[in-house]
Amino acid sequence: MMKVAILGGTGNIGVGLSLRLAVANYSVVVGSRSEDKARKKVEEYNSILNKLGCENRIGFADNSTASKICDITILAIPYKHAFSTAESLREELEGKIVVSPVVPMKKEGNTFVYDPPEEGSAAEKIASILDCSKVVSAFQTVPAKKFSNMNSKFDWDVPVCGDDEKAKKTVMDLVNSIDGLRALNAGPLKSSRLVESITPLLINLAIKNGIYDLSIKFV
Amino acid sequence: MMKVAILGGTGNIGVGLSLRLAVANYSVVVGSRSEDKARKKVEEYNSILNKLGCENRIGFADNSTASKICDITILAIPYKHAFSTAESLREELEGKIVVSPVVPMKKEGNTFVYDPPEEGSAAEKIASILDCSKVVSAFQTVPAKKFSNMNSKFDWDVPVCGDDEKAKKTVMDLVNSIDGLRALNAGPLKSSRLVESITPLLINLAIKNGIYDLSIKFV
Repeated sequence: MMKVAILGGTGNIGVGLSLRLAVANYSVVVGSRSEDKARKKVEEYNSILNKLGCENRIGFADNSTASKICDITILAIPYKHAFSTAESLREELEGKIVVSPVVPMKKEGNTFVYDPPEEGSAAEKIASILDCSKVVSAFQTVPAKKFSNMNSKFDWDVPVCGDDEKAKKTVMDLVNSIDGLRALNAGPLKSSRLVESITPLLINLAIKNGIYDLSIKFV
Repeated sequence: MMKVAILGGTGNIGVGLSLRLAVANYSVVVGSRSEDKARKKVEEYNSILNKLGCENRIGFADNSTASKICDITILAIPYKHAFSTAESLREELEGKIVVSPVVPMKKEGNTFVYDPPEEGSAAEKIASILDCSKVVSAFQTVPAKKFSNMNSKFDWDVPVCGDDEKAKKTVMDLVNSIDGLRALNAGPLKSSRLVESITPLLINLAIKNGIYDLSIKFV
């Protein structure tokens, strides 16, 4: 059973990832800056899993411990903290598969714009901080709220980018293990900018057309 | 009946646009650098329309005349010629609605990358060349080959960007007039970069996953 650390597993996209990967039988450890916050959230998650009839249980730890004991670490952390968190976990994440769902964006007037770092994308910057070839980008276009509701039904595609083909394959398997998601190989990590920039578009489409919780399907 | 000039209407996305807008009862004029080439292609198109039982017929002209006599001009022109064509039609296009399906991209190794001009996107550059607020971007993510085959069935979304709300609404109506396309308001013209950059992603996904003629649906 592969062990997956979900840093920032107490909020946003981390909620759905924790629950749905547990349902898919991964061994999930929720990481947080505060172990206390993680414990409290994980109690909620395990009670939801219980009600779903799922026997798998989620563990918790501080970010450093979670990263150390797991095979895959998902940085489900808001953009403004993602890079500093990666910086602080350089040792723990050495040689590990690291998944970036991070989207660098900002608001200009009523419109969200893609605001990538100098490296070209958030995923490339994280790879550069960690000096790691096993950074894989995924999940940017999954809408957090709908994803976290275990009653939601969906049929979404998840483009996956990475330079290490084995690591990318491992993450694509992880994506495909979640009911309603289809992983697609979107090429090398430098293509992550083409995926990250879809997220501000999805938010703009939602606001301007009144259709919420949008994701993508390639048809 | 609104008159639509389709420059580059003899190739690529122009084929499907010409035929499908004629079916939707627009008055279509195919423009080309060579009037002869336009005449020959339009004969083919009209024979297809005839077989489809569509009574509407497509006209042809050189690019300059087509732009002059029409209300809307679609620049269905390959990236490398799009800007020089716009430059050469500044007078003809003054005050007109101009639609940009142009995608600036290049190949690096086996991967297509988005390669926008300094202005941020092809559509913004065209607006700057024409000094025109009625530039609207659309159709970048529509796969030309499948779109040109009148037997194809599809269900695709077309994000539409523009700064002039009335012009954008006119183009959204035009998009929605085509069976199988749904126009979505994607915000101001500066958001065109978020849409244009989906096209290299679509091509990469096709190549790397062996699924061709991909477009997008927001679900």
